[in-house]
Amino acid sequence: MTINILFAAASARWDDYEQPLRRALSDAGLTDVTLSTRLPAEEVDYIVYAPNSDLQDFTPYTRTKAVLNLWAGVEDIVTNPTLTQPLARMVDDGLTRGMVEWVTGHTLRHHLGTDLHVLHQDGLWRGDDVPPLACDRPVTILGLGALGSACGQALCALGFPVTGWSRSAKSIDGITCLSGDAGLHSALSEAHIVILLLPRTVQTENTLNADTLSRLPRGAVILNPGRGTLIDDAALLAALDAGHVAHATLDTFRTEPLPEDHPYWAHPRVTVTPHIASATRPGSAARVIAENIHRGETGQPFLHLVDRELGY
Amino acid sequence: MTINILFAAASARWDDYEQPLRRALSDAGLTDVTLSTRLPAEEVDYIVYAPNSDLQDFTPYTRTKAVLNLWAGVEDIVTNPTLTQPLARMVDDGLTRGMVEWVTGHTLRHHLGTDLHVLHQDGLWRGDDVPPLACDRPVTILGLGALGSACGQALCALGFPVTGWSRSAKSIDGITCLSGDAGLHSALSEAHIVILLLPRTVQTENTLNADTLSRLPRGAVILNPGRGTLIDDAALLAALDAGHVAHATLDTFRTEPLPEDHPYWAHPRVTVTPHIASATRPGSAARVIAENIHRGETGQPFLHLVDRELGY
Repeated sequence: MTINILFAAASARWDDYEQPLRRALSDAGLTDVTLSTRLPAEEVDYIVYAPNSDLQDFTPYTRTKAVLNLWAGVEDIVTNPTLTQPLARMVDDGLTRGMVEWVTGHTLRHHLGTDLHVLHQDGLWRGDDVPPLACDRPVTILGLGALGSACGQALCALGFPVTGWSRSAKSIDGITCLSGDAGLHSALSEAHIVILLLPRTVQTENTLNADTLSRLPRGAVILNPGRGTLIDDAALLAALDAGHVAHATLDTFRTEPLPEDHPYWAHPRVTVTPHIASATRPGSAARVIAENIHRGETGQPFLHLVDRELGY
Repeated sequence: MTINILFAAASARWDDYEQPLRRALSDAGLTDVTLSTRLPAEEVDYIVYAPNSDLQDFTPYTRTKAVLNLWAGVEDIVTNPTLTQPLARMVDDGLTRGMVEWVTGHTLRHHLGTDLHVLHQDGLWRGDDVPPLACDRPVTILGLGALGSACGQALCALGFPVTGWSRSAKSIDGITCLSGDAGLHSALSEAHIVILLLPRTVQTENTLNADTLSRLPRGAVILNPGRGTLIDDAALLAALDAGHVAHATLDTFRTEPLPEDHPYWAHPRVTVTPHIASATRPGSAARVIAENIHRGETGQPFLHLVDRELGY
């Protein structure tokens, strides 16, 4: 019987994903497939979804077996009361690798002080500015999911002492794992570089606020490739103005694109990057979608199902 | 019997090295030691040396068992005809790790296109500039000594396809190893990023010249943390002007400090860093020196001896 798959994301994405999805479905042995951006709701077996889709009412999709998100973040869909079908988020190897590359690159950028040279090609030979070795640069990662652990292990391999913090206790090779409120304070207190990779939930909102920022050692650097809501923006700007936080490199914001007049753009201690750290790559994401549809059709449990209580 | 160790480097270095050396010697069990910047030549057992030292005539050091270089590069001393004593170069774990950090950081900087954001915080959201993954960014390293292999393996671990080239054939896990003239052309032909880590010898002078630069794909990026002499500067400037080479990040030069009026400083496609990629770290370097003196005193062969024929 034909499997009907609705592609429900912003229309620009169809151009990126159609061919990779057709190839991945065929590679997964799924040949009798209708893949389309338009299908009668009551005939849809699977929805390939992005939260910026026009589809917001899942009620008519009565036979849909699963909603397969193209993105890692599900905060804009998980609270939708009409969504009663199983929801899987994207855990894409390409997304994880891209995140590791962004995080490692920006960690080394701050560690090496590269901006000094990139911004000042002025003929002045600053030969005494040799940075410490990575082994003397403690890094703390908030969030130890798939992304946080992969980043932590890559930084560990480069010699950085890595502390990780998560709500519930975890154990990951090479990473000093802390949890709970006391663990958070301890994780922040010695961090030269703090990397935010927590999911967006009610609990994680403003994880970095005036109180937690004050626990960082003076001169710490913040990287936020996670979620804009993890930071109390006013508190961060105050900490930057005071020089308590030396620099923030931010990839995610409460409003995206970040408005042209937002103080982050003009702040000399802030680098804005345009939500590029966690881009899903069509080729590898399509393989994850196809694998889950194959599982649904062969009676195996879906991968990467979202826990509606936890919100991720 | 007291071991007399002469510290012969630019005087500023004495402040950095005296305490680390005393500690390392003591940790190595060498307690009856005189360590000084001034000793009668005929009483010196070991010379801790840097090529910028005033000591250039080794003839009077008749009982000296070894000259222990503080730097990895020995090109300024290896041809000194008065030096008949064994010469060891520095193979410092700290130096290797620092080099790996610099090379990985600048490779990721170019891979991610970080400069675009560091230099243009102008309110423009460039959200479509998602870089390819590292697995689609071939990197070539010229030189597969201790530094080249360590850098290659770090980049490999991050997912970059790494090709390495050396004069004589080598085999290193995870790296596609090439050698000889034909191997050089092949190593350059697909490289998005080329990293120069060859030693400075007569044979390696101008390894990158008009001919070899023309073998690179258009838009390649060059990192030179190795030696200034590896590049024909006029040919590189021409390739940059033509846009054939997209960028060069250079840490070593024929004249250092790089003169203020050198065209590299003003070139928009060049980043100059002030010979900081391969800084020796006093703590770890002192341990290497102490280990070699311990070996000399217990009749074991010295580590890291220089082959005078090869020049490294």
